Amino acid sequence: MFIGRITGSIVSTHKVESMVGQTLFIVEPLRIDEKKKDSLKPTGRTFIVVDAVGAGEGEIVLCVQGSSARFTDQTKTLPIDAAAVGIVDSVQAHDTVLYDKSTEGT
Amino acid sequence: MFIGRITGSIVSTHKVESMVGQTLFIVEPLRIDEKKKDSLKPTGRTFIVVDAVGAGEGEIVLCVQGSSARFTDQTKTLPIDAAAVGIVDSVQAHDTVLYDKSTEGT
Amino acid sequence: MFIGRITGSIVSTHKVESMVGQTLFIVEPLRIDEKKKDSLKPTGRTFIVVDAVGAGEGEIVLCVQGSSARFTDQTKTLPIDAAAVGIVDSVQAHDTVLYDKSTEGT
Amino acid sequence: MFIGRITGSIVSTHKVESMVGQTLFIVEPLRIDEKKKDSLKPTGRTFIVVDAVGAGEGEIVLCVQGSSARFTDQTKTLPIDAAAVGIVDSVQAHDTVLYDKSTEGT
Amino acid sequence: MFIGRITGSIVSTHKVESMVGQTLFIVEPLRIDEKKKDSLKPTGRTFIVVDAVGAGEGEIVLCVQGSSARFTDQTKTLPIDAAAVGIVDSVQAHDTVLYDKSTEGT
Repeated sequence: MFIGRITGSIVSTHKVESMVGQTLFIVEPLRIDEKKKDSLKPTGRTFIVVDAVGAGEGEIVLCVQGSSARFTDQTKTLPIDAAAVGIVDSVQAHDTVLYDKSTEGT
Repeated sequence: MFIGRITGSIVSTHKVESMVGQTLFIVEPLRIDEKKKDSLKPTGRTFIVVDAVGAGEGEIVLCVQGSSARFTDQTKTLPIDAAAVGIVDSVQAHDTVLYDKSTEGT
Repeated sequence: MFIGRITGSIVSTHKVESMVGQTLFIVEPLRIDEKKKDSLKPTGRTFIVVDAVGAGEGEIVLCVQGSSARFTDQTKTLPIDAAAVGIVDSVQAHDTVLYDKSTEGT
Repeated sequence: MFIGRITGSIVSTHKVESMVGQTLFIVEPLRIDEKKKDSLKPTGRTFIVVDAVGAGEGEIVLCVQGSSARFTDQTKTLPIDAAAVGIVDSVQAHDTVLYDKSTEGT
Repeated sequence: MFIGRITGSIVSTHKVESMVGQTLFIVEPLRIDEKKKDSLKPTGRTFIVVDAVGAGEGEIVLCVQGSSARFTDQTKTLPIDAAAVGIVDSVQAHDTVLYDKSTEGT
């Protein structure tokens, strides 16, 4: 899985019928800054994921790819290869807190 | 999933029988411009996808990869790993409209 | 899926029993030339695919990856993740014919 | 599969219900140093995996990706695409021991 | 699939129970030299695969990735995403023999 920030969304009215009503978020994957190891860095990549957890723009989410994106009640019959399955509260690595949702942006 | 523009198509008359009658589009994936964040940029990659939604050349489509490309009525028995499952109307990110089909090219 | 040219083959006599009798081609994926957009360019990558369509060296084939490579009568029980499922006759994009099998090499 | 070092973890309280109680580790994949071939080098990539083996931070683990991440008793119904399925004791290649857990850090 | 040379192995005593007794090889994928097209070149990448064919270090093997790695009698219930399913005898491409096991190293 990967973690990424929800930066936007797409609208598609003409689509495969089973997809009606699904929220399609744009997610930019994040990785740990390789040198300083004290923060998360955007990767510049653009993924589209179905929201399976009720997330919102600006939040960092845990995303699953491949067939496993269908392993939730909401997504089990959908033609999707990526889903947001958790909202991230905090990330710690190398004995450092890299992200804490409760203090971000304050 | 990813979004990409349909730039062309391929013809293959000699193929696995189940594939007869399927439209094979060439799709170039798009990503958000990393610096300006105000437009979609082509990635230079070349994917072949089966059209599951009745799209046409020039349109931006939502594409699914892997086993999930088989999760539509039309594609469920096909040896394919990518399908267009939605025509994209609009894309917004970073509080900006990056693409709006209704105004493009006007 | 991707398109690629068959550039060679491999021989493996000691292998998993279900693989006996399968043709193993080397395929080099092709992409559209990013700048001129008027031809197909080799990517330099090396894939091994099972031939499910009766192709030959030098031909451009449509290749499927992942679990879907098993979705043909010939390949359904094989431990393979890539198969050639169609021989490409022509490729057109950006209103240009990038490849036409009937005129290539003449 | 790949091997990687567990460098941290993430917390997500609001998530798909089946994921409750799963440990989510951050893993940085390792590869063999290309030139010297005498040590393992971090790749700088950031993966999130479910712990299926009782590992701890700092350990090197064997990770599986894709649908196979669901092929353990603990993970079989989870929407995950990566799991740690073994703790690595030692790595040898090119007739050299590249890693030995029993002597590391002593 | 890809071909790669077995360069080493890993030991993991603490692992998911179904994995007990499986040989875990380190494999470095090979590709055709892009310029000269007369030899195989290591890619510098590090994959871990389960041996499903009785191979040994130094040999070049055919490797399968993804769910298909489970499509052998030996591996069908394992949490693995890569397996060696054939020992490569020879590789030819561009009308040249790039590898012949019977003459290598003599």
